[in-house]
Amino acid sequence: MTTRHPDTADTTDPTLEADVFARNCASRPVLQNVASRWGVLALAALREGPYRFSALRRRVDGISERMLSQTLQNLERDGMIHREVQQSIPPHVEYTLTDLGAQVADQIVGLIHVLESNIDRIRAAQDAYHRD
Amino acid sequence: MTTRHPDTADTTDPTLEADVFARNCASRPVLQNVASRWGVLALAALREGPYRFSALRRRVDGISERMLSQTLQNLERDGMIHREVQQSIPPHVEYTLTDLGAQVADQIVGLIHVLESNIDRIRAAQDAYHRD
Repeated sequence: MTTRHPDTADTTDPTLEADVFARNCASRPVLQNVASRWGVLALAALREGPYRFSALRRRVDGISERMLSQTLQNLERDGMIHREVQQSIPPHVEYTLTDLGAQVADQIVGLIHVLESNIDRIRAAQDAYHRD
Repeated sequence: MTTRHPDTADTTDPTLEADVFARNCASRPVLQNVASRWGVLALAALREGPYRFSALRRRVDGISERMLSQTLQNLERDGMIHREVQQSIPPHVEYTLTDLGAQVADQIVGLIHVLESNIDRIRAAQDAYHRD
């Protein structure tokens, strides 16, 4: 007879060490948010300094207002960014990285740097792949 | 009168420096592939060493055969991984990181490490966000 462990009812077990390879680990959706199509670019942009919504939207070329809004909500919920309403006329909302968000953004900027500085190798690989 | 530059007909301009913030830069889809939901996990797994398809599928808990196959094709096309058919009976296919793939995977493993080691802070942020 198998005894059912109470933890199996939960989707995540907080007593276990975080492991993104485990499908139910709480760290996996966080990784998916920060590494999402727009999450990476928003974090990398905010690594340059605080941004207001409209300026951030111009920096992250191609993002829609709706997607930026959703992306920022996810990042705020996971503790990556801080949202501050400025008492100006008209009021503005400014976004800043938290300490944790800055650590995450550093890793993402490192990743982007590797890709940008190797774009010629990547293009050569793509050409060779499509030729074969 | 504006002269139309021949390069404007292309979606990407190889004479410009790579910049993921520019919507048509060739580096952006590459960033999206390596930072995709399954791309990050496949690269991080292959940082541990070469994997055969079926073992990689077990390591990346929750991925379907179809999604793993698609993910590996994208990574191979971008020059991140090398695919080798082994002359065994039955034949096996083994996947290994290229030098570039290893550099990219290092950044991703660094990102995962930051998230996993801060999961308590992230959970606290999520709880506070949902309480407000």
